[in-house]
Amino acid sequence: MSSSQRKPARRSTGARRSAEAEEAILQAAGEILQEAGYAGFSIEAVARRAKAGKPTIYRWWRGKADLLLDAYHRQKPEIPVPDTGNLEEDLTVFVGTLLEHWRTTPSGNIFRSVLAEAQNDEAAAEAVRDYALDRRDHIAGIVKRARDRGEVASDTDPHAVAELVISFAWTQLITHRWPGEAELRAILRLIARGAKAERA
Amino acid sequence: MSSSQRKPARRSTGARRSAEAEEAILQAAGEILQEAGYAGFSIEAVARRAKAGKPTIYRWWRGKADLLLDAYHRQKPEIPVPDTGNLEEDLTVFVGTLLEHWRTTPSGNIFRSVLAEAQNDEAAAEAVRDYALDRRDHIAGIVKRARDRGEVASDTDPHAVAELVISFAWTQLITHRWPGEAELRAILRLIARGAKAERA
Repeated sequence: MSSSQRKPARRSTGARRSAEAEEAILQAAGEILQEAGYAGFSIEAVARRAKAGKPTIYRWWRGKADLLLDAYHRQKPEIPVPDTGNLEEDLTVFVGTLLEHWRTTPSGNIFRSVLAEAQNDEAAAEAVRDYALDRRDHIAGIVKRARDRGEVASDTDPHAVAELVISFAWTQLITHRWPGEAELRAILRLIARGAKAERA
Repeated sequence: MSSSQRKPARRSTGARRSAEAEEAILQAAGEILQEAGYAGFSIEAVARRAKAGKPTIYRWWRGKADLLLDAYHRQKPEIPVPDTGNLEEDLTVFVGTLLEHWRTTPSGNIFRSVLAEAQNDEAAAEAVRDYALDRRDHIAGIVKRARDRGEVASDTDPHAVAELVISFAWTQLITHRWPGEAELRAILRLIARGAKAERA
């Protein structure tokens, strides 16, 4: 299991999944996203292509946004989590790669559309909130490694650091801005310095 | 002019505005937002109520989102910018008040809807991007005051600090999360510490 894989815990509980059917559904969802983008994505279309029943999908995913986020995440190339021994560097590379991925592939618009839907739809909002928490845990892992090597103050909460990193990346996406290398580094340096500083 | 008022510079250039007509349009836009929310807001409805021509509105605002953001901003109570002599405290109070305002008034949903529209509409995206930059300037002012009193490292860019503050607040809104007092403070402490730390 890759380190960037999402935790199954966030998926709906209940019925034991058939691994094969799950794979077929995610495969179909990914293909539809690639071919038709967000606008062409629906539970119905996924069910048809995966030869699965809609109820099966609804038993395992909480709705369109939930399934879409799983498919979106699977398509994302593994964003490298460098382990350079320097938190500022690790975070700068991580966020830079993520923004570049959003900017140069359909992924950016797909994720934007999910975020848009989450503003007016409760199920989508819940899916996005869970996804944010999942990504926060993932980034907190980078911070914990830095803490283990003594680069982060003992009273720094890795999740708070991760929250800032995600907030910055997502806000760049939704405001359609692509920071240059210098601006990106200045921001991540600020976060890394904050993580490092002992209480005054 | 209050310190939180937006710079006229972000508005469309060209025709000299009549202050009276502008006031009537903003007044009408504000009333419609209050009465009918985002869903009932349109350039047409504002023009009708303000007894203004639609071309007049389009000459001064770049579209619905642009006018809506002006009306939204006017309705926001002045968020106090405390000057406690402590950056962490100033930022915590500022962001806490903003989130509370979003959480307890229709403002939160209105702003969410504009952000949603900006994900699929170029004119709305431009209006939101300008609004973000305007708010960043405003918050950078808080940081500059802290720098003037020697509380911020000389090589810290106040705009980078402000960017993090805005990103955090906006991301809480779009992921429908309302951090508790302790979480809020931990985040703003991290930012304030980062701003304070001299280059290692």
